[in-house]
Amino acid sequence: MLGSTHGTLTTHSRPARVVACGGTTPQAVHGTAGPPGTGAGAGTGDGGGPGSAGDLDVSGRPLTAAVPDLDRFFRPGSVAVVGASDSEGRPHTGITRRLVDWAERVGTRLHPVNPGRATVFGLPCHASVSDLPEQVDLAVLLVADPLPVIEELAGTGTTFAVAFASGFAETGADGAAAQERLAAAAARSGIRLLGPNTNLNAFETFREDLAGPAIALITQSGHQGRPVFALQELGIRLSHWAPTGNEADLETADFLSYFASRPEVGAIAAYVEGFKDGRSFLLAADHAARNKVPVVAVKVGRTEAGARTAASHTGKLTGADEVVDAAMRQFGVVRVDGLDELQDTAALLARARPPAAEGVAVYSISGGTGAHFADLATAAGLCLPALGEEKQRELHQWIPDHLGVANPIDNGGHPVGDRRGRKIIDAILADPSVGVLICPITGPFPPMSDKLAQDLVDAAEQTDKLVCVVWGSPVGTEDAYRRTLLGSSRVVTFRTFANCITAVRAHLEHHRFAASYRSPFEDAPRTPSPSARKAQALLRPGEQLSEHAGKQLLRAYGIRVPREQLVTSAAGAVRAAAQIGYPVVMKASGPRLAHKSELGLVRIGLTSASQVRDAYRELADIARHEDLPLDGVLVCQLVEPGVEMVVGVTPDPLFGPTVTVGLGGVLVEVLRDTAVAVPPFGEDQARAALGRLRGAALLEGGRGAAPADTDALVEVMLRVQRMALELGDGLAELDINPLVVLPKGQGAVALDALAFCH
Amino acid sequence: MLGSTHGTLTTHSRPARVVACGGTTPQAVHGTAGPPGTGAGAGTGDGGGPGSAGDLDVSGRPLTAAVPDLDRFFRPGSVAVVGASDSEGRPHTGITRRLVDWAERVGTRLHPVNPGRATVFGLPCHASVSDLPEQVDLAVLLVADPLPVIEELAGTGTTFAVAFASGFAETGADGAAAQERLAAAAARSGIRLLGPNTNLNAFETFREDLAGPAIALITQSGHQGRPVFALQELGIRLSHWAPTGNEADLETADFLSYFASRPEVGAIAAYVEGFKDGRSFLLAADHAARNKVPVVAVKVGRTEAGARTAASHTGKLTGADEVVDAAMRQFGVVRVDGLDELQDTAALLARARPPAAEGVAVYSISGGTGAHFADLATAAGLCLPALGEEKQRELHQWIPDHLGVANPIDNGGHPVGDRRGRKIIDAILADPSVGVLICPITGPFPPMSDKLAQDLVDAAEQTDKLVCVVWGSPVGTEDAYRRTLLGSSRVVTFRTFANCITAVRAHLEHHRFAASYRSPFEDAPRTPSPSARKAQALLRPGEQLSEHAGKQLLRAYGIRVPREQLVTSAAGAVRAAAQIGYPVVMKASGPRLAHKSELGLVRIGLTSASQVRDAYRELADIARHEDLPLDGVLVCQLVEPGVEMVVGVTPDPLFGPTVTVGLGGVLVEVLRDTAVAVPPFGEDQARAALGRLRGAALLEGGRGAAPADTDALVEVMLRVQRMALELGDGLAELDINPLVVLPKGQGAVALDALAFCH
Repeated sequence: MLGSTHGTLTTHSRPARVVACGGTTPQAVHGTAGPPGTGAGAGTGDGGGPGSAGDLDVSGRPLTAAVPDLDRFFRPGSVAVVGASDSEGRPHTGITRRLVDWAERVGTRLHPVNPGRATVFGLPCHASVSDLPEQVDLAVLLVADPLPVIEELAGTGTTFAVAFASGFAETGADGAAAQERLAAAAARSGIRLLGPNTNLNAFETFREDLAGPAIALITQSGHQGRPVFALQELGIRLSHWAPTGNEADLETADFLSYFASRPEVGAIAAYVEGFKDGRSFLLAADHAARNKVPVVAVKVGRTEAGARTAASHTGKLTGADEVVDAAMRQFGVVRVDGLDELQDTAALLARARPPAAEGVAVYSISGGTGAHFADLATAAGLCLPALGEEKQRELHQWIPDHLGVANPIDNGGHPVGDRRGRKIIDAILADPSVGVLICPITGPFPPMSDKLAQDLVDAAEQTDKLVCVVWGSPVGTEDAYRRTLLGSSRVVTFRTFANCITAVRAHLEHHRFAASYRSPFEDAPRTPSPSARKAQALLRPGEQLSEHAGKQLLRAYGIRVPREQLVTSAAGAVRAAAQIGYPVVMKASGPRLAHKSELGLVRIGLTSASQVRDAYRELADIARHEDLPLDGVLVCQLVEPGVEMVVGVTPDPLFGPTVTVGLGGVLVEVLRDTAVAVPPFGEDQARAALGRLRGAALLEGGRGAAPADTDALVEVMLRVQRMALELGDGLAELDINPLVVLPKGQGAVALDALAFCH
Repeated sequence: MLGSTHGTLTTHSRPARVVACGGTTPQAVHGTAGPPGTGAGAGTGDGGGPGSAGDLDVSGRPLTAAVPDLDRFFRPGSVAVVGASDSEGRPHTGITRRLVDWAERVGTRLHPVNPGRATVFGLPCHASVSDLPEQVDLAVLLVADPLPVIEELAGTGTTFAVAFASGFAETGADGAAAQERLAAAAARSGIRLLGPNTNLNAFETFREDLAGPAIALITQSGHQGRPVFALQELGIRLSHWAPTGNEADLETADFLSYFASRPEVGAIAAYVEGFKDGRSFLLAADHAARNKVPVVAVKVGRTEAGARTAASHTGKLTGADEVVDAAMRQFGVVRVDGLDELQDTAALLARARPPAAEGVAVYSISGGTGAHFADLATAAGLCLPALGEEKQRELHQWIPDHLGVANPIDNGGHPVGDRRGRKIIDAILADPSVGVLICPITGPFPPMSDKLAQDLVDAAEQTDKLVCVVWGSPVGTEDAYRRTLLGSSRVVTFRTFANCITAVRAHLEHHRFAASYRSPFEDAPRTPSPSARKAQALLRPGEQLSEHAGKQLLRAYGIRVPREQLVTSAAGAVRAAAQIGYPVVMKASGPRLAHKSELGLVRIGLTSASQVRDAYRELADIARHEDLPLDGVLVCQLVEPGVEMVVGVTPDPLFGPTVTVGLGGVLVEVLRDTAVAVPPFGEDQARAALGRLRGAALLEGGRGAAPADTDALVEVMLRVQRMALELGDGLAELDINPLVVLPKGQGAVALDALAFCH
């Protein structure tokens, strides 16, 4: 499906439309197309116009997101329901009834289609889609086999279809083939298809009385989306729900980029079991990042078994979890594990305005609560700035002197009961170091907590700063919670410390990310570099290259390797050593060699011609004895010590070639301390990957060692990325091990390289 | 406070009373003293009898828990309220009213004491405690200065007092001194004191209509205990609440050991900001472990700042968090971070019977939900056994064939609506590999979920196996949740996947722990070993020992060091080398030397007399040049390579000397891969500490390396522990770095040792 953009129905993101960060209202941040709540008919936030659908990178993959215009999908003027029924006890009767109700509610004309009925729920029923009284925007297909109906609809001007039928890719190979046929029919017809194996969730009732930016929801399981949808009962606004099912055509990425273009959407929440295509997901996430619309997702697959079970549920692809994780991170998608975290984080991201400061103030009516919350928040990386002397004096006007107000701020309880309560909150919010105020209320005590909740709600109305409350009572039926806090469209209310901390951190990180985001697709190479031709010539289909050839590959991409010569005689070795300069290293080189050290095929620190001559003979003897064909013996410069790293290329079924970086050496082989960067990535993302290594500190030097040349290491990662993209399938795998990163300013040298060709 | 056991009021745990694991009811597990619910007057579960209060270990610390008899504290026959008031607007009026109500409710005679009143709330009021009409079990002191009243009460037969006043250790040094005086007065009077700086929580109303084993609660902050107490509104039984305040006398450990002896207590939940004394906590946790009563605790202090803020809140001690963490782990205390986790884990631990199997079955009405839950559960280490072919066939009688029932079990929804629903649940529970059934319900849909909830509740009544439900709706007002699930005393209901997984894991781990628990106090040394005298002679107060002296210390405790001689001449060095055998290592040895390698004071692999002679002169020259006094030069055997570890002794303000183990080498210095073992610990705990190292796999060998001699490493840890305990304050710190752990069967050798004396 790479590059399939369904031209006529898609628009493309244009960076020029992205509004710069720094405004204080979500409208200013998320787009300019009108105030929230005017969704219907407003078009996509990016405007229309032809995109550059044919724009491909050097690996042949698209460089711009397909942003389908789904306005008429979510708000069709007219709908056909194929397979409609109103007979008691028929499986489609309930669905038809709900669609009829929904159409009435939203003012859509509904046309039942069923050859066996004259009317359905009092509406005239048509024998087939060719008998429809008008061109419909959307056809809902309740029939077991949707393919013939799709073919019948072709050319009728119908724009969208939804297929409910199951029994496709989720059931195995036969079902997958049937799904392919259905997808092909949809593509031929020009109809964008949702499903198969989906449901009515897109046509649920959304509360229209709720204010503020909304959550748009994408789920690959109706059941799993239900609790996010239910947030509306807690006063959280939702604007859309896309239940993507098997994604024969429309996929998660399509809805992601569409929602990121809608002005009423404050945040996108997604429940993902598997991806249909890695690149389309990256492009959609990139589109959201450019538009500064936060995305939070549960992606099932922390374990291999989990990934398999989940992906098979809707017949999708699954890749290595650390690669998915890295991809999400690079494009600013907040990954969470639980549906509760998904709900709470999305609710906060939708409501919160860009933070005026990164500081978090913790305010409570109990010293214990404040200390406990502050401890967990600090451990999670939130910054709790100590309030200044003057601010503390101000707070002590209302709070007894023996209580700590530096942050956390403990008011001891009583001040919340009178006019001091609101003054304290306003004074904290007025502090320029404070961007977020969090008030954990673990023990509700109506005389205090009712007034406190109301003061927080009132104060939140008067500020752009984020006000969060944790309602810690497990009961959850208290008025202060149900009415006061959940009644506010500004306060964000949590039930646990952990979820509040997760969401606030996601919010601060998202805005830090969005403020400095530069799309790596802008710099992605479109045409092969001069290196590519040189490198192509070195590839040997189906083979593992010799160390010497592998190093030539690196050299072609400007990656430094030791001075070295491939020799085929002892005399040649001695001549080479003299030219390279003693001491030298000698290694057997051949197309099938790995683990050379363990086989005794490496000699280090040879300082004389006689040592070189002896070494040559010994290496040749071992190779002969072990029956290992050699293309010769490498005589190499002995490189000074540095930090030993590994850099490699690993193919991923979803995202294509990825670049892995890690610490070298046996110890880290045990600790598996590696990080992945998913192309396309720039310098910042490469550095971020290095920062995720647990042993990253090793690059900073210390204990007498100089800091390592991290710039050179990053440069190697970027060059390896370029190589992987340009050589594409030709290069199956690459492993530079070790890459010696020398002290700052001295570069990095690849001491060995193992390359496998496809 | 070490060793202070208040003899007349304490009993002591006797291992003989511990009932073996393997029974299926909590009564059988948690003690034999009567059925649940007969708390009052039942005495402590351990029975009475004199303990061995004087039993001390070689470091002078007690070996048995003080288990105070607190029956009359929680259920006093008569109470004096000193400072009682019924005047509108007086601060003590509200407290007095609540005490009067409580006394009426539980049938306790209450005597107000206040010189200014004739009656209080209609009860005759007494001018002072000496005018009381009877001896009281408990005196509640509402007065600002409780000390004179404690002194007045001495000898009246009053057993307990509670002091509400604040302004003690939580306010600083003066307050801490006042608290010391109060504690001393209590000790002189023989009255056990709760507080100061505490509240009424011990005299709350506990629901008596709830069935099953109860949670007993200990908190150092009233506010922070409130949500656990509120669990009663969700149908979870609570039996006690101990708000320990500043712990001038009675401390967290006293309540821990008392509750662990109560037959009605199924689990103990604690909110801890700081400990009064490390040893008393360990002994109480040991007492609970012997009695197989699970303990779950929040301990504030993940960050240093958090630990300080929290501990100062009630004026307690704070130690390094990793030491607290290790101590809790060794004695089976489940540590959690959030109050929600505390509630959910305690509720499950109280209700769950010992698991018949470790396997977890995940059952849901949605394939997505099952896959998602299974993924997170597996990632957290729970075992989801695949159900056998026969069981799967049985389930497919009721569940359509295309749905997966191997585990997770997906019923597709419909079968729950009819008689198949209960059959499926019973069939899963009947599987011998299944110990726990978890049913996550994320999207409540009354036609299905109401029946499902009822079936789960009914099934749970008929089985000893654990049945858990996750009610994932954020709304929480649904009938199936509020009435059906919370109405069950057998099903444990959660709101999030994460908390369910945390609690189930804690349950399975607790029973694994309890089944094999052997108290390390039983084997703790009471008298010094013969090594101690030799070692004592080597200590030099206030000094850092030379490498040679440090190694003699190790040798005294039977820890292997290389063959070595301390020499003071080049000729002596050559003679020593000949005796030791070439190749040798030479190192300068002196009392103030550290970082010898970096100073060039180490020579490795010397193979001849001339090399030895030269090395001697060079080392002496460097030392002279750097002005470092030497006690000589060490000529040492060159030890073959192995896994380099570090083992050390570090003092902790709470727990005394602790033993640290970690991986050696520069890389792990960067990764700080260490683990702590808190004395007393046995072989199992030492091994468990090794298992917590991220690089533990390095000890297992692989990549051509042989597995290391872990037994020898454990033995070194145990010998170092013994040394630390026997030398006590004499040894301030010890650092064996590196300890070379040789291949299995070949031992471990300490290559260097740095010892600091107090």
